[in-house]
Amino acid sequence: MIRFEILQQSRISHARLGRLHTPHGVVETPAFMPVGTQASVKTLSQDELEQLGYTLILGNTYHLYLRPGDERIARLGGLHRFMSWSGALLTDSGGFQVFSLAGLRQLDDDGATFRSHIDGSEHRLTPERSIEIQQNLGSDIMMAFDECPPYPASYDEVARATERTFRWAMRCKQAWLANPNGQSLFGIVQGGVYENLRLTSLEQITALELPGYAIGGVSVGEPVEAMRQVVSFVAPRLPADKPRYLMGVGTPEDILHAVQRGVDMFDCVLPTRLARHGAVFTTRGRLNLRNAQYRERQEPIDPDCDCWVCQRYTLAYIHHLFRAGEMLGLRLATYHNLAHYARWMARIREDIRIGII
Amino acid sequence: MIRFEILQQSRISHARLGRLHTPHGVVETPAFMPVGTQASVKTLSQDELEQLGYTLILGNTYHLYLRPGDERIARLGGLHRFMSWSGALLTDSGGFQVFSLAGLRQLDDDGATFRSHIDGSEHRLTPERSIEIQQNLGSDIMMAFDECPPYPASYDEVARATERTFRWAMRCKQAWLANPNGQSLFGIVQGGVYENLRLTSLEQITALELPGYAIGGVSVGEPVEAMRQVVSFVAPRLPADKPRYLMGVGTPEDILHAVQRGVDMFDCVLPTRLARHGAVFTTRGRLNLRNAQYRERQEPIDPDCDCWVCQRYTLAYIHHLFRAGEMLGLRLATYHNLAHYARWMARIREDIRIGII
Repeated sequence: MIRFEILQQSRISHARLGRLHTPHGVVETPAFMPVGTQASVKTLSQDELEQLGYTLILGNTYHLYLRPGDERIARLGGLHRFMSWSGALLTDSGGFQVFSLAGLRQLDDDGATFRSHIDGSEHRLTPERSIEIQQNLGSDIMMAFDECPPYPASYDEVARATERTFRWAMRCKQAWLANPNGQSLFGIVQGGVYENLRLTSLEQITALELPGYAIGGVSVGEPVEAMRQVVSFVAPRLPADKPRYLMGVGTPEDILHAVQRGVDMFDCVLPTRLARHGAVFTTRGRLNLRNAQYRERQEPIDPDCDCWVCQRYTLAYIHHLFRAGEMLGLRLATYHNLAHYARWMARIREDIRIGII
Repeated sequence: MIRFEILQQSRISHARLGRLHTPHGVVETPAFMPVGTQASVKTLSQDELEQLGYTLILGNTYHLYLRPGDERIARLGGLHRFMSWSGALLTDSGGFQVFSLAGLRQLDDDGATFRSHIDGSEHRLTPERSIEIQQNLGSDIMMAFDECPPYPASYDEVARATERTFRWAMRCKQAWLANPNGQSLFGIVQGGVYENLRLTSLEQITALELPGYAIGGVSVGEPVEAMRQVVSFVAPRLPADKPRYLMGVGTPEDILHAVQRGVDMFDCVLPTRLARHGAVFTTRGRLNLRNAQYRERQEPIDPDCDCWVCQRYTLAYIHHLFRAGEMLGLRLATYHNLAHYARWMARIREDIRIGII
């Protein structure tokens, strides 16, 4: 089980400095989790993630269930051992991917039937099966199986999904407690952009008294202002003594905004996915490495960055790697972006500590 | 300029232990050079190449001329600085790629006109231009521009190519000496599988008194036995005091065979290219990581390998990475194969030292 310790509460915002104790080590919060969809944070080695200071990463239940299969991972000793990751792991429920990535075939009160994006084969996820998969994976934190409607969705659609999310959360809790095995379950607050649905969901989900709570149903296509409004509304209303996790967010600015509303945990593919498209974060803004203006630039991606990529390589070289289709380019950009995010989170924690955010 | 020091001559074969002093450090010979075609040894960082103990790598003139361009690299301080490689560099002449990769349009006594494999644009390489490009790249060792006919080729074709290779080598020498700038030029012995043409080429090329000599025109599609016969015939006849480089070879066994015939230097895409196809070298033979039999194997690629990949990851995990199309799989296999080659070369050097090969 996890234990969440709040070290300091900001006096000027909802921000808090915390420490999440997991069966696989301690995570300083607010924390950003790199996404390791298929048991790999794309292009990086686990050594590099450690070097970057990440102590908690995310694995995707939908992908790992399809390949290599949760039962196989269980036979191989669980996801930590399978991927040689001694830090903490959080797994999502698979729900979001079923709705966004797989071919959803049928959705009913019991669960969802979908087609694999790999081979078109038909599969079924229910709350119980999602938890069973996450138990096979052996993550430190499991997420409840929820229904996450895309944006925009009507009030009635979101109301039905929110109601279903609650009933599924109860079933997830039961499945979890039948075999807790040191794992923790987080509930997910849905409700789209409708404040009264958010409030209903919040009351229902927090009544389950779970070890942590997430804000779901954001980062599904809504404008950034709508997302921020939801976060501002929901986050401060979540139980103060439990970790709060904002799913799928976001830019450094979005993260800072949410931290000030009391969020402790984040995950997002943004830094890793953008990197593979050649977009990198710097202290002076975002650059696209493919841009011809970098062809002969002898400075690093970010002169203020202390990561080994910025210590060793010039913009001109990394630009060339992208133009030439060399995989090393993807690695260097990914490493740098995750270094940027790690530093950003460290600065946020320090700013909370000294009381300026 | 390079300086070649022979530390020990085997009493039971032509093998010798040597030390190649270059403007960018010392290379223990016999040495294997990883291939960094586009200023990157595919998937690996320069830190990793250093970690693996490589002190000399190869860059491809044809590719770097087309992208990012040799003049650009010159403006950026040369290839070492461009790619942040402080070890030694050898560049090929571009000839082999023009014949094998580009669309060769016209070949005459002056040079070759070809179409870029990138955008179809027309370009021309001559001996002088090849040397000029290599001077712009600033490699420690440049290769003479040669004509390398594919296998099989008739006696007359090979005879003409060998003759042209000699005339081009003289022009390369002149272009090199007009601006030596600390670089060294190696001549290339051609002659295909015809011993008397090899002998003619050997006499012509060695008469130029260059800092080193290569055996070219092998690894162009001929059977391995034909290659070995050429090496057995040519290598011992090359000047004993100069480094001998066998181009494009090969498997660990081919390398050992050639070392025993007196070869000092090798390059080959085999370990890196095979790795990207999932094939890895082990002390117990070659494995294909994509093979279903490795799905649940908990041991490393090679239990006798001390590389960090074998210290950290199981066959089951790397198999999964390959099946899932994760780039980390390519990295891990590449690193392991180059570790295998580095260890193989170290063992060859040790075996020469203790007098058993």
